[in-house]
Amino acid sequence: MSLERIRLASLHNKVISAQQAAELIKDGMTVGMSGFTRAGEAKAVPQALAQRAKQHPLKINLITGASLGNDLDKQLTEAGVLARRMPFQVDTTLRRAINNGEVMFVDQHLSETVEQMRNKQLKRPDIAVIEAIAISKDGHIIPTTSVGNSASFAIFADQVIVEINTAVSEELEGLHDIYIPTYRPTRTPVPLTKVDDRIGTTAIVIDPAKIVGIVFNDTLDSPSTVTPPDEETQGIANHLINFFEDEVAAGRLPKNLGPLQAGIGSIANAVLSGFQHSSFEDLVMYSEVLQDCTFELIDAGKMKFASGCSMTLSQKYGDRVFGNLAHYKDKFILRPQEISNHPELVRRLGIIGINTALEFDIYGNVNSTHVCGTKMMNGIGGSGDFARNAHLAIFVTKSIAKGGAISSVVPMVSHVDHNEHDVDILVTEIGLADLRGLAPRERAKVIIENCVHPAYREELQSYYDRACKIGGHTPHILREALQWHINLEENGHMLATKPEAKSA
Amino acid sequence: MSLERIRLASLHNKVISAQQAAELIKDGMTVGMSGFTRAGEAKAVPQALAQRAKQHPLKINLITGASLGNDLDKQLTEAGVLARRMPFQVDTTLRRAINNGEVMFVDQHLSETVEQMRNKQLKRPDIAVIEAIAISKDGHIIPTTSVGNSASFAIFADQVIVEINTAVSEELEGLHDIYIPTYRPTRTPVPLTKVDDRIGTTAIVIDPAKIVGIVFNDTLDSPSTVTPPDEETQGIANHLINFFEDEVAAGRLPKNLGPLQAGIGSIANAVLSGFQHSSFEDLVMYSEVLQDCTFELIDAGKMKFASGCSMTLSQKYGDRVFGNLAHYKDKFILRPQEISNHPELVRRLGIIGINTALEFDIYGNVNSTHVCGTKMMNGIGGSGDFARNAHLAIFVTKSIAKGGAISSVVPMVSHVDHNEHDVDILVTEIGLADLRGLAPRERAKVIIENCVHPAYREELQSYYDRACKIGGHTPHILREALQWHINLEENGHMLATKPEAKSA
Repeated sequence: MSLERIRLASLHNKVISAQQAAELIKDGMTVGMSGFTRAGEAKAVPQALAQRAKQHPLKINLITGASLGNDLDKQLTEAGVLARRMPFQVDTTLRRAINNGEVMFVDQHLSETVEQMRNKQLKRPDIAVIEAIAISKDGHIIPTTSVGNSASFAIFADQVIVEINTAVSEELEGLHDIYIPTYRPTRTPVPLTKVDDRIGTTAIVIDPAKIVGIVFNDTLDSPSTVTPPDEETQGIANHLINFFEDEVAAGRLPKNLGPLQAGIGSIANAVLSGFQHSSFEDLVMYSEVLQDCTFELIDAGKMKFASGCSMTLSQKYGDRVFGNLAHYKDKFILRPQEISNHPELVRRLGIIGINTALEFDIYGNVNSTHVCGTKMMNGIGGSGDFARNAHLAIFVTKSIAKGGAISSVVPMVSHVDHNEHDVDILVTEIGLADLRGLAPRERAKVIIENCVHPAYREELQSYYDRACKIGGHTPHILREALQWHINLEENGHMLATKPEAKSA
Repeated sequence: MSLERIRLASLHNKVISAQQAAELIKDGMTVGMSGFTRAGEAKAVPQALAQRAKQHPLKINLITGASLGNDLDKQLTEAGVLARRMPFQVDTTLRRAINNGEVMFVDQHLSETVEQMRNKQLKRPDIAVIEAIAISKDGHIIPTTSVGNSASFAIFADQVIVEINTAVSEELEGLHDIYIPTYRPTRTPVPLTKVDDRIGTTAIVIDPAKIVGIVFNDTLDSPSTVTPPDEETQGIANHLINFFEDEVAAGRLPKNLGPLQAGIGSIANAVLSGFQHSSFEDLVMYSEVLQDCTFELIDAGKMKFASGCSMTLSQKYGDRVFGNLAHYKDKFILRPQEISNHPELVRRLGIIGINTALEFDIYGNVNSTHVCGTKMMNGIGGSGDFARNAHLAIFVTKSIAKGGAISSVVPMVSHVDHNEHDVDILVTEIGLADLRGLAPRERAKVIIENCVHPAYREELQSYYDRACKIGGHTPHILREALQWHINLEENGHMLATKPEAKSA
C-alpha cells in the first residue's frame, strides 16, 4: 500500500481489499471499467469478481474502452459473469462465448459508447472501476496507460472504485488530456486544431465523494502480442510508401503526410514500422492506440508527436519507454477515445487512417469483423470512426491466409463494416489499388490487377467477367457471390480445388 | 435579357447565347454544374450541349450537387455526352446507361465531393456552369434554389459560365449562406452551433475575371414528384411519433426533438408531413433538401427554422413559398451541401436523420442503393453523411413492395450502404425496431417481431432459427442468405410460393 498516492487524505479510509470492492458489484449491474487494448485496465477487482462469481454466481453488463489484458475477459467469461459485453474484445474464450450466443456482444464504433451514454441511449454504469496512478489532492483520478472511456464512466457512475497501480510510475502524470464534450443543444466545437493541442485536464474531474473504494494493485499491463514485421508486411509498407511519395509529389499530401492513424494489431504496426526506412520526416500521429511502431518512429527521428488514447507496447518497448519517460514525455499525449476517434477531428485534421481488413471484395467493400459472415473475431474498433471521416481510408491485409486456403480478396464480402463509399485505398503485399473517384467496374479492375494473390486471380477475373455479362452498376452473380465462403466452411478452402495446387 | 441582374456593368459584354456557352465545353472536360435534387440546375447550357453533341459528339465528366431536373440527365445521356457522372442521379434513362456499364457513375457521400476536390483527390472542374438569380456588384454569384456544390465548383474552375434565371425572383437574395472550410493543416472548426447560425456570405465569392460567359434562362425548376402520404406512410409516421414521445418522456430527447433531417423522396417527406398531427412544437430542421413537408410544418406553426442546401417543392408548394417569400424568408436558409451534411456539424448538433431504405436485414444492415445487389437506383445521397454521425440514425420503408412480391426485410441485404454499427432505428408501417445497444441476435428478434410484413414473418423466423442452430455472433446460412433475391430475379417474387397466396 502506498497511501501517498492518495493525495486527498480524507480518502485514505476508503482503502479496501479487491474482494471487498468486488462485493460492491451486484448482480444485474452495468459496470464501466477502464482498459483499452490491454492497457490500463483495472486488474485486481475484475479478478476478485471472477473468483467471487464461482461461489456466488452473478451476471453483469461489462463496458470498457476496448479489450482487456491479463486474461481478464477469459476469467470473467469462464466465471459466467458476462451477460453483455461491449464495445470490443480480443479474447479467445470470450469470442467463443459470443459466437455461441452466450454473451451478448455489442460491437460498436469506439467513439460512440460514451456519447450514447451521455444521451441516455445506453444505460450509464452503475459503478465504474478505474485504474489510476494516483488520486490528486482534489480527489481527481489520474489514469495509467489508457484513458479510453474511463473519464466518462467515472463521471456517469454513481459509485467509483479506483484501483491504484503502484507498478506504474507516477511520472505518467501530465501525459493525459481529458476533454469532455458539452451537452447538446449548446455544444461547442471541440477546440483542437493540431495533434499536440492540449484542450483538457490532466486528471478525471469527479466529486471525490463518489469514490466508494480504493484498491491497490501492482500488476503490469500484458505486453503487446504483435508479431514482428515479415516479408509481406514490409511489402505492404513499401507499396504504401511509394503511394505516399507519389501523393506528395502530386501536391495531394504535405511532406509530412499529415496525421497518421494505425489500427491495433500486427499488420498495421508492421506497416507503420516500415516507415522508418522511408524519406518522410516530421511525421505525426492522431491515432487510437500507440503501439511499438509509434516509438520506433520517434526513436528513428521520423515522428515528432503522437496523440492516442492508450499505449500498448511489447515487453521490449514497454521497458524502453517507461524506463525513459522523461525522454518521451513531451512527444505524446493520451486522450479519451471519444476525442482520439472523434468524427469532427478526423475530418478537420485530415487523418490518414490505416486499418486492417479481414477481407475485401472486388468493389471495395471491407469486412473487418466476421469470419464467413457469422463468427466474430474482435470487433470493428475505431476503424469506422476513422475510415468514414478520414482524408484517406486505407485498408491493408495479406492477400492470402491459412497457407493459401483463404483469399483475402473475394467476389463479395460476407459482412460489410466499411462500404464502397468509405474505402479509398486497398493494399496487400501484391500491390495497391487506388479507388478514389472510380465507379465499381473500374474498382474491380484495379483490385483484381493489383491486390489479388496469383493463385486466385484467374477465378476472380472469371467471376467478374461473367457477372458483367449479367450487368448492373455493381455486377454480381448472386448464386455464386458467397460461394468461396461456403467452400471454406464446407471444405476448408475457398476454391473448388485447393489453390496451392494451382499456384506457381 | 435583364441586364440589371448583372450588377457589375463590366460583365455586360459577357452575355452570350446558350449555344455559344456550350461551345466552351470541350471533349474530355470535367464540368461542374449547379443543381441539387432537381433544384437550381443550369438549364439552357446543358440543353444546348446535348443538342450540339448530336452533331459533334463529345464526352464529359459531369459533376453536380445531386440530381438534375428538366430531364437534363436524360437528354445528356441520350446525346451520349456522359462518360462519367457523379455524385447522385434519379433519371430512368441515365440509370439504364449506368447499369449497362455505359456511364461510369461514382456514387458518393454528398458531403465529400468538394472536399476531395479541395485535396486534389478528385479532378477539379475545368469549367463550372452555375445558375444564379443575379451577379452582384462585386461580380459574385447569387445562387437560385440550391447551393449544392456550386460555390466550390465556381471557386475551383478556371472558367465559369453563369446562367441567370429570370423566372426566379431576386427576392431570394439573402437566403444563402456560403461558407467554405479552410485548407488543412490549419483548418479551424466550422463555427456553426445552432441551425439558424449564419456563418458565411450571401453570394459565391469568385474573381469575376473567371466569368467567361453569361447566359439567360427563364425555365423554372421541375416540380417535385413526391407522392402524397398514404396509409403506410402515415403508419410509419405514427410509429415514429410514438417513439419520439417516449424518448422525450424518458429525457432522452428535448421537447422539440432537436434538429431533424429527412431524406429526399416520398416516404421521408410523407413521414415528416405526418408530424403536423403530433404534439411537438418548435421543431427545427438541419437537412439536405427542404421539401413540401418543411413548409407544411412551418405553415402549421410546428417548425420554426429549417436549414438545407436546396428546396425541391411540388407545384402547389412552389407557388405558395415563392409567391410569399417575404413571409418565409426568415424561416429558412440554404448552405453548401458540404456544410448541410458535414460530419462535424451532424455530430455536434445531434441530428435525427430519417432516411429511406430500399431493404434492410434481420441484423440491421441497410441497402439504400442497389436492387438485388447489382442495379443502381439513385445513389446513397446524404444518407451516409447523416446516419454515420447522427444522434439517431433512422431508416424507414414500407414492409413490402411490388404488390407483395418483395419484402423490404430480408435475411441478408444484397448490398450494404449503412451497416449494423450505424443504424439505430428501423421503421415500417408494421412497427418500429429500436436497435440501440442490442447484439445481433437481439436485433433480429425485434426486427422480425416489429417490422416484417406478416406474409414474410414465418419464413424469416424460420431462416433465423435455423441459422442460430449453426451459430455465430451474427447467425447466417450462407447457402440461403441471398436466396430471396435470387428468387426475385428468377421468378419475380422473393418466396418460393407467391406470398400473396399466404397472406391473410
